[in-house]
Amino acid sequence: MSDQPSAAEEIMDGVYRALRAHGYADVTMQDIADECSKSKSLLHYHYDTKEDLLVAFLDYVITDSEARIRAHADEPPIERLAGFVGWFVFEADAVDREAFHIALLELRTQGPFNERIREQLVRSDRLLRGTVADILESGIENGTFREVDVEETAALVVATLDGARTRQITLTGGDGDGAGDRDEADGAGDGDEADGAGDSDEADADGDGATAEGGDATAVDDLPEPTYTRRVAEATLQRIVAPLLADGVALPSLEDGIAAMSRDDETE
Amino acid sequence: MSDQPSAAEEIMDGVYRALRAHGYADVTMQDIADECSKSKSLLHYHYDTKEDLLVAFLDYVITDSEARIRAHADEPPIERLAGFVGWFVFEADAVDREAFHIALLELRTQGPFNERIREQLVRSDRLLRGTVADILESGIENGTFREVDVEETAALVVATLDGARTRQITLTGGDGDGAGDRDEADGAGDGDEADGAGDSDEADADGDGATAEGGDATAVDDLPEPTYTRRVAEATLQRIVAPLLADGVALPSLEDGIAAMSRDDETE
Repeated sequence: MSDQPSAAEEIMDGVYRALRAHGYADVTMQDIADECSKSKSLLHYHYDTKEDLLVAFLDYVITDSEARIRAHADEPPIERLAGFVGWFVFEADAVDREAFHIALLELRTQGPFNERIREQLVRSDRLLRGTVADILESGIENGTFREVDVEETAALVVATLDGARTRQITLTGGDGDGAGDRDEADGAGDGDEADGAGDSDEADADGDGATAEGGDATAVDDLPEPTYTRRVAEATLQRIVAPLLADGVALPSLEDGIAAMSRDDETE
Repeated sequence: MSDQPSAAEEIMDGVYRALRAHGYADVTMQDIADECSKSKSLLHYHYDTKEDLLVAFLDYVITDSEARIRAHADEPPIERLAGFVGWFVFEADAVDREAFHIALLELRTQGPFNERIREQLVRSDRLLRGTVADILESGIENGTFREVDVEETAALVVATLDGARTRQITLTGGDGDGAGDRDEADGAGDGDEADGAGDSDEADADGDGATAEGGDATAVDDLPEPTYTRRVAEATLQRIVAPLLADGVALPSLEDGIAAMSRDDETE
């Protein structure tokens, strides 16, 4: 962003902070106005409804991602691919970033029901898969990568990194310092007063109280270490990217990939 | 399920149908009562709050998954692994299953804020990764697989398949026949009356109106064909599973994997 943010940039920054604090379902135009120090009536002058503003925000976030990707377009394909993988790594203390992506995930659950949101999600998907496809095609052309199925590889890489991110942000609890610490109650149980004895044991279908620990599954770490995204990103480089490389091409480290993208301003 | 479903099973089936129809955020105890032909007061006798009932439902779904996984525990490891991959394939017409998983995804977004929901999500994650780890360890022991990093491979496979599923269900619109056809409005814009001129163009950070098509990204299919999950599951077998195989072990087809799991009752 420039030194003098425009009114639109200030509003989008307010949406970002308000989504982090309140989540998609509960955030109001007033919350957003408070976060960007604008009046609610000014917001309504530009955006009729909360939906309009959130669709505009998705557009803003995706446009920002396009710009960040474009800024790396002239770098060597293998560095671009490692940077793409590293972009999806969330460290354990990235609570603000996790909180923002939880709000985005809430927005994504509206995709099937809201065509304008879905249009932005499809645009984002095409940007991400298209970026990996572009990197692969450039790298095949200049001899970095073997001939591979570009569309399939792009879908595989994007699904893998997105899946790791979704699992990390949903499985990680709040520590009172951001992600798990929304300003309002989460609404579970709203409108339903307690009026009876709970007995959730009835839900155990076969009555044996089996848990993952008691079943046939092998004991695994509570969560992948050090984080879900870092573990899966490392595996993505070793298992998916390494076999794409032409003979003699070296695989960059994940740290190199993370460093490449974090040199940009962190806005996502 | 047995021929004579228990009251608990009937209630859980009602939760399943109510979540599909209304989503997590909007579903009420009354909706669930209507779907299972019980009184709301009976539901409250067993479950104090909507949260109690939804946590019990998650427990029920995961326990059901445990039972389904256990039913295949004696099959050859490579068949089990192909079955696990095939389990995550959603065909294009799987609208009920997609609608259910959208509701589950909404529930998952509550993970950071609700410890009881998060406990169930962590249990599910350990079940899934533990199952892949168990398959890999059995297969390494009997010579089906090479020596591989079991924990890393399990995290990679689960993240990949989950990511493909999340992308498919969020990027696919309703066709008036289920998934995109909830009984109530989605709530976007609630409480915000239209009172001004919308101008979402202000959100275009750099003012060039760039889209994925106009940027540097290579043109890719609108969505992976025939579905996101099928494309990524196929890639998972070819790119992630095939390199694990010991010499002379044949890779099953994705169709074999899909058939293995669909012989069970489809409850998830």
